[in-house]
Amino acid sequence: MPVHLQAPQVSDLHAVAGLRIGVTEAGVRKADRKDLTVVLIDEGASVSGVFTQNRFCAAPVQICREHLASGSAIRAMVINTGNANAGTGEEGLRRAKETCAALAAQLHIDANQVLPFSTGVIMEQLPSERIIAGLPKAIAAAGQVPSAQQWVDAANGIMTTDTVPKAASAQANIHGVTVNITGISKGAGMIRPNMATMLGFLATDACVAPELLKPLALALAEGSFNRVTVDGDTSTNDSFVVIATHKAAHTPIQSLESAEGQALFSAMLQVARQLAQAIVRDGEGATKFITLKIEGGRDAAECRQVAYAIAHSPLVKTAFFANDPNLGRILAAVGYAGIADLDQSGIDLYLDDVHVAIKGGRHPQYREEDGQRVMKQSEITVRVNLGRGTASDTVWTCDLSHDYVTINADYRS
Amino acid sequence: MPVHLQAPQVSDLHAVAGLRIGVTEAGVRKADRKDLTVVLIDEGASVSGVFTQNRFCAAPVQICREHLASGSAIRAMVINTGNANAGTGEEGLRRAKETCAALAAQLHIDANQVLPFSTGVIMEQLPSERIIAGLPKAIAAAGQVPSAQQWVDAANGIMTTDTVPKAASAQANIHGVTVNITGISKGAGMIRPNMATMLGFLATDACVAPELLKPLALALAEGSFNRVTVDGDTSTNDSFVVIATHKAAHTPIQSLESAEGQALFSAMLQVARQLAQAIVRDGEGATKFITLKIEGGRDAAECRQVAYAIAHSPLVKTAFFANDPNLGRILAAVGYAGIADLDQSGIDLYLDDVHVAIKGGRHPQYREEDGQRVMKQSEITVRVNLGRGTASDTVWTCDLSHDYVTINADYRS
Repeated sequence: MPVHLQAPQVSDLHAVAGLRIGVTEAGVRKADRKDLTVVLIDEGASVSGVFTQNRFCAAPVQICREHLASGSAIRAMVINTGNANAGTGEEGLRRAKETCAALAAQLHIDANQVLPFSTGVIMEQLPSERIIAGLPKAIAAAGQVPSAQQWVDAANGIMTTDTVPKAASAQANIHGVTVNITGISKGAGMIRPNMATMLGFLATDACVAPELLKPLALALAEGSFNRVTVDGDTSTNDSFVVIATHKAAHTPIQSLESAEGQALFSAMLQVARQLAQAIVRDGEGATKFITLKIEGGRDAAECRQVAYAIAHSPLVKTAFFANDPNLGRILAAVGYAGIADLDQSGIDLYLDDVHVAIKGGRHPQYREEDGQRVMKQSEITVRVNLGRGTASDTVWTCDLSHDYVTINADYRS
Repeated sequence: MPVHLQAPQVSDLHAVAGLRIGVTEAGVRKADRKDLTVVLIDEGASVSGVFTQNRFCAAPVQICREHLASGSAIRAMVINTGNANAGTGEEGLRRAKETCAALAAQLHIDANQVLPFSTGVIMEQLPSERIIAGLPKAIAAAGQVPSAQQWVDAANGIMTTDTVPKAASAQANIHGVTVNITGISKGAGMIRPNMATMLGFLATDACVAPELLKPLALALAEGSFNRVTVDGDTSTNDSFVVIATHKAAHTPIQSLESAEGQALFSAMLQVARQLAQAIVRDGEGATKFITLKIEGGRDAAECRQVAYAIAHSPLVKTAFFANDPNLGRILAAVGYAGIADLDQSGIDLYLDDVHVAIKGGRHPQYREEDGQRVMKQSEITVRVNLGRGTASDTVWTCDLSHDYVTINADYRS
């Protein structure tokens, strides 16, 4: 059961001028399933991406990096579910390239103007012939006019173990012109993004100096997808792509530090964060959405280190699942997070408004029933003060339930 | 269900001259439960210990470190279950010291000649008055004569979520004299020892130069308890103690590098490893015992890093639980283990005798049914060759099952 997460409605989303999407069934792994998505981007857009830091990265990730580095204008993306094309060696690279070439031929562009994305089972060869056979139908589905409906279709088309499609929109006012920002994401397990999530796509029709795209994509990933985790497993296929179609009729933004740059970044971050949090809310087996705020650190990095130790502790995660204020498990995770000179007598722990531990020990006024009350909620904020500085950081995660085990024990069967 | 693990029989164990053990019910947390153990050590023994690296270490761990550092001859240990005395601040330290003082008074020794150990729930105050009240009965139970039965009682007396008591023995021949080595351990969850496990005690009647005890304890912990993990949660209470009573009638061992030093170390390591592996075999919810052998690394540290990434991946662990050769998950974990310059095209993966992946891709001869056959076994060796050096290391772990979630969602209720 996803935690406070609704499927996006067409009326929630804004079309983004300069970008059309088509979705179809290609039978990649199973029949009767929308599993192939193409994104067609008008000439003149800027595209940037950040990708998994997993050394065992998938073939499409390698090709994306290559095509983006080549400097060619990206004009299309092809996304399949059902097969991750990871752990597939040279043959996997060949099949990913073949898919790009086939789409390029139909669009009269070069193969290196296409970015490929795959998600699904690892270590099986990509059935590229089925994907290639599906391309004409996908292109036809994209039609001639950008629409919000296409984003809903795409959010559905890229799902794997997701139970709810994930899409979000925002608008920003740039020099008096309303610009649109819309994005989609997918992912529920193998989620501990390192640079990006499983798949996240964010587009805007704002005009942005092309050289700003890369820092924009990095900053957005840092503030959203790089702050969520479900199970600590960094995927082989994590990809986050930011597209600016430059279709809006305003003076181009020349700096992210300008008022307009900040307005756009802030609106885009809101969407990116919503998409990233949607992945946690739909985390495999999740029954709780947990915000981990670590404060009082010497730097943000050590706050994150503590947050991830808590977020990845199976004991903490099962305690949340059980509504059990077994809060010593959180303190234990803080203790083994790897901060060598951490002094336990400086640590305070809060569960929402309840002050649980003070200076490393149980708070004298803490009552089990107060902890219990908060633990029963489906959204909980855990706040830890390390008592050694002024830095802070936040990570979002979910609990570990029976359904996580069931889902992952059955995923391939 | 523990994996190939039997309760120890009296006939499997050797008494260790110079050391007596008494176990009783003190009602620490629940009634009618053997929860208090005292170990009484004759004058002249040497004792060393290694303890958790968790910065949130429990009060008894802090006291143990203090008492061992004081240089006083350790003459007794007091061990309770039901309460970990961790996250208890100054009051927890006071209660641990009070317990040591009470035992010391009854044995006519100093309080700093006593080592205290606690295991159980975190962040609740230790009911030291109940423990103190139970001490006379525990001392009486230790009697006057060392026996194998006392070790069986102790193995039972220190259990918490363990389903099987853990004890092991070996003998070694030192200068023509047979020496005895016996140890016990406990632990099933919150297991990713860092210097030692939840609780492990190993005793020998061999004569060893006292200054060798510390390096001996470190080397034994490194080769056994520091190579197992259940859930990656490093406990607040990990303690591993090595006792040499020096009662055997042979010339003292002066060096661990000597033939006799090696013979003793090897026999002690065998027992320590058996005790450490017993914790994994009895890991919470475990249905599989998994050996992770990582070879071809530049150094042993990076091999361990890869082994722990695999061992802690919830996706890998649930795949084992499901008998599902979803082996891409293992490759993904290798990829995110944190070796920055790892080249995926150098990696080979074997499941027992089955060659699954070669040079980072699926082996052309690999057949799903071969993987399936191995995955169905209850003992499995995963071998990864990193293809970048000659170092290797081994870690033992278990799978992640529904029972793990059930046990940890219900532990306190």
